[in-house]
Amino acid sequence: MITLYHCLSARSFRPLWALEEMGLPYALKVLPFPPRAFAKEYFDVNVLGTVPFLIDGDTRMSESAAICEYLAVRHGPSPLAVRPDEADYGLWLNWLHQSDATLTFPQALVLRYGRFEPAERRQPQVVEDYAKWFHGRLRMLDAHLLKHEWLAAGRFTMADVAVGYALMLSESTGLAKDLQPQTAAYWGRLKGRDGFRRALAAQDKAAAEQGVKPAI
Amino acid sequence: MITLYHCLSARSFRPLWALEEMGLPYALKVLPFPPRAFAKEYFDVNVLGTVPFLIDGDTRMSESAAICEYLAVRHGPSPLAVRPDEADYGLWLNWLHQSDATLTFPQALVLRYGRFEPAERRQPQVVEDYAKWFHGRLRMLDAHLLKHEWLAAGRFTMADVAVGYALMLSESTGLAKDLQPQTAAYWGRLKGRDGFRRALAAQDKAAAEQGVKPAI
Repeated sequence: MITLYHCLSARSFRPLWALEEMGLPYALKVLPFPPRAFAKEYFDVNVLGTVPFLIDGDTRMSESAAICEYLAVRHGPSPLAVRPDEADYGLWLNWLHQSDATLTFPQALVLRYGRFEPAERRQPQVVEDYAKWFHGRLRMLDAHLLKHEWLAAGRFTMADVAVGYALMLSESTGLAKDLQPQTAAYWGRLKGRDGFRRALAAQDKAAAEQGVKPAI
Repeated sequence: MITLYHCLSARSFRPLWALEEMGLPYALKVLPFPPRAFAKEYFDVNVLGTVPFLIDGDTRMSESAAICEYLAVRHGPSPLAVRPDEADYGLWLNWLHQSDATLTFPQALVLRYGRFEPAERRQPQVVEDYAKWFHGRLRMLDAHLLKHEWLAAGRFTMADVAVGYALMLSESTGLAKDLQPQTAAYWGRLKGRDGFRRALAAQDKAAAEQGVKPAI
């Protein structure tokens, strides 16, 4: 049985959504955000104190996009993975990595210095710098979506789950309002998927059962 | 022929080192840093204006850790890749993703707000926050290296290239002085490799031939 440690609508939503798209059985443990402040015992599970954390047999993973890739390949074969012999393999890997390293981290700065830090530690300049940086880094996605429905191999894959979460987060950070029309439409297609809706329902159900309330 | 766009000792050092470890032929194009300011024609190659950028036939990639993974798998089979049927496959993917998303981005903030921005835009609090954040996020690596020589599968792989670059960067950011002893020793093993030295020599030779000087 796979176990996923999760905070509501945090990066760990990527593996949760991935699990639902794969149709794999899993146990979902919901933690208050941030767990390093409100669930210190969690350091015994994950030394970093971050979510996600996935346990699958002897495998332990903490990186959300890596988990999406892992699930589709290790628990495949699945059309959600792009195989190394497919033309779009490199493109697929690039989106998986770009989703978090390039499209999520800047938004974490916008949240941290615009909302989560106490007033005296807020940094409006950093918020502005990384809001601008985020939109600049969306140029590759914006250009791709003018010509393609999905990110790689002409079908919905884990790259769409991983990048889709960065767009989901842009609703929380307030940056979604400036998405290009084709990128906003893509995000609309993603959140209309049954797998996405099942993931939302699964986190709500688990949070209610486990008594965890949203941070935002 | 593979073409790699590169800035001296930037993230694009990962794919350069990876190419040397694989022994693949490649053309290296060195750009002044940052190319979006000093080589605006580069936007015609990479719409993001960032390095690395790799061209391999019809494949185009911009994410440094993704390129390491791609090279070892697509141009393999190679012991530098961990296969999906190996026990450490998930661990390997986790290090590849962690190398950039978790261990490089915080250091980019330390450089940006501590050194690259003009004096009136520097942010000592952000430098301090992300220096601390970097060392906190090294805990998984520090713990792993107490028990293992390499990051996955008991051998040197692309995960070591990818994480190794984050440690290389920590020399530039000044954060290397606070590495744990086992992590400093690991970085010593990495930079002692022939492949690492060949990559350093290759960037110096290409920079001299192409008339590009170091930014730092």
